[in-house]
Amino acid sequence: MIKIVGIGPRREDMTLSALKALEESDVVIGYGSYTRKIIDLLDGKEVISKGMGQEVDRAEIAIKYSKKGYQVVIISSGDPGVYGMANVIYQLMGKYSQVEVEVIPGVTAVNYSAALLGSPLHDFAVISLSDILTPLSEIKRKVIAAAEADFIISFYNPRSKRRTEPLKEALKILRNIRSPQTPVGLVKTSDKGSEISIVSLQDLDEEEVDMNTTLLVGNSFTYVDEGKMITPRGYMIPHSTHPLADEFYQKYLAGEGIKGSNNVCEYYPCHNHPQNCTFCYCPFYPCGDPSTGGYWIKEKQVWSCEGCTWIHQDDTVKCIEGKLPQLLGKVEDLQDKKKELLKLRRECVYLTK
Amino acid sequence: MIKIVGIGPRREDMTLSALKALEESDVVIGYGSYTRKIIDLLDGKEVISKGMGQEVDRAEIAIKYSKKGYQVVIISSGDPGVYGMANVIYQLMGKYSQVEVEVIPGVTAVNYSAALLGSPLHDFAVISLSDILTPLSEIKRKVIAAAEADFIISFYNPRSKRRTEPLKEALKILRNIRSPQTPVGLVKTSDKGSEISIVSLQDLDEEEVDMNTTLLVGNSFTYVDEGKMITPRGYMIPHSTHPLADEFYQKYLAGEGIKGSNNVCEYYPCHNHPQNCTFCYCPFYPCGDPSTGGYWIKEKQVWSCEGCTWIHQDDTVKCIEGKLPQLLGKVEDLQDKKKELLKLRRECVYLTK
Repeated sequence: MIKIVGIGPRREDMTLSALKALEESDVVIGYGSYTRKIIDLLDGKEVISKGMGQEVDRAEIAIKYSKKGYQVVIISSGDPGVYGMANVIYQLMGKYSQVEVEVIPGVTAVNYSAALLGSPLHDFAVISLSDILTPLSEIKRKVIAAAEADFIISFYNPRSKRRTEPLKEALKILRNIRSPQTPVGLVKTSDKGSEISIVSLQDLDEEEVDMNTTLLVGNSFTYVDEGKMITPRGYMIPHSTHPLADEFYQKYLAGEGIKGSNNVCEYYPCHNHPQNCTFCYCPFYPCGDPSTGGYWIKEKQVWSCEGCTWIHQDDTVKCIEGKLPQLLGKVEDLQDKKKELLKLRRECVYLTK
Repeated sequence: MIKIVGIGPRREDMTLSALKALEESDVVIGYGSYTRKIIDLLDGKEVISKGMGQEVDRAEIAIKYSKKGYQVVIISSGDPGVYGMANVIYQLMGKYSQVEVEVIPGVTAVNYSAALLGSPLHDFAVISLSDILTPLSEIKRKVIAAAEADFIISFYNPRSKRRTEPLKEALKILRNIRSPQTPVGLVKTSDKGSEISIVSLQDLDEEEVDMNTTLLVGNSFTYVDEGKMITPRGYMIPHSTHPLADEFYQKYLAGEGIKGSNNVCEYYPCHNHPQNCTFCYCPFYPCGDPSTGGYWIKEKQVWSCEGCTWIHQDDTVKCIEGKLPQLLGKVEDLQDKKKELLKLRRECVYLTK
């Protein structure tokens, strides 16, 4: 039996299954820097360390030992199914019959990095920038697709001393498609631990990136707060509506609302001229999404819309008005249908940003 | 301090960090079915179980306890950063100051499912099909992008009794873009364990899919062998070239090769008529990639090209000839530049499939 075991990014991220597989093994095969990490677990076992780039050798040795009846463990850092040894073994397995293989999953770099950075993930794409086995044209096609569809993107193997072009190309694509302010997290991991930094897409210095770095590019909603990279999923934050907002939507629903700029209002323009006042009170308050300019006043735990003018753009109003009548039948729906309203908001943010 | 802890898909996939965080905690908050799984680890702790859909409540309770000085653990199954509690906590954190939070990453469903299915991953996209917080238009846009760029796609929360439309739409998109033979892995996990099945995209019955299923859609290279779903990364399989192939490429490099159909050959057409014989001997042999029709004869450990006619298509020959002169200067390059040759093959497979 061959077990392909992910030992995770750090010793403490190893799973109970991985530990058990190592305990039960006779032979442990892996890249030297991985076997050294867990040397205290390898007492009395045959340890075969092979260098990088000798993946097929390692796999052939594992198959040979397994056929002799040994319990063999091949170790990968992170998860063995993500650019690790699982693909190599299975690709070679086609040549042989009667070799039993089991994959023991582990914590992979995207999850590890996300945990250190805060909570940057929503729908995400994982792309290896190594062009050793993959043509650059294919890598670029994937980066374009992921960038355009606003996936969070995690780049593995982003850059080595000799392999600098794929990252250069990826950044060129991202800078063409995504906002220059998009937060990018860098997690550099060595034996001494992990260092994190968060920069904007425009400020990212590719020279800072090496083979031990995992990159995480945010989506349109990702923001940075107190040094953490956060992508809100759009949860509803409990809140009662303001009496003046209730009154405003009574009128709105009775067809007596404001249309366009409300020049006669004593506060006009409360944000900027010309502003569309159709939704003087935002139907999504509090959205909790800083991507349009709002923020929490922490001392008061109050959501401030001071920096957000999105709701007062003509195209925003048009998008919202297209679907609002289906959701808002009575004032109470501002609370009762908040989830649906926040979804409509998200849809319109994408159409109008 | 609040620790947001991923307990993995199964008990044995829990990490050492997760165990330690639970040990050191005073209060453990989580969905009932998660806390029940680890009830033996919760002795002497205050356990607060909340139902699904009460994410914000759970987060507010955690913050409250943490402010009182308790060590609080919030548990998520899998990894808390992937559609788990990390985003909720961080989104709410904006309201408060001086709350310390740490995320303990875990094995998420895509890695767990991949391990059970074989080694299906290469570059991949993770998409939640839940349209509770995300507009369907956004989900569809992401599925189209991932399908077109040939990502492996993992769908989380694919279908519930009431939420059937997103999966229907996703499958419609996939069936429009991807080959009907694309392998799709289904991993259904319950308290009793996990059940796996692998079907083709055309045969996938959406009624088989529920909330506890993770779906994994292969890319153009994914194949099924002995019940395992495998995506080859394109590793070079050691092999010496055949003397007749050496002779063939001597002539090819001397400009005395065959062009187009070799009607005078006694074996013509060895595959089908009209076949292009320019690469009578395949310069990529053995590619180890069944996606064009080749396969291993296991008893002999020999790669058979019998089912592959790809190398004999005119457009394939044209694509290869465009770049081969840069790689192949002498016959030995068939071995020495095999990695580069396999990359060229991959590029041409994408252009001609």
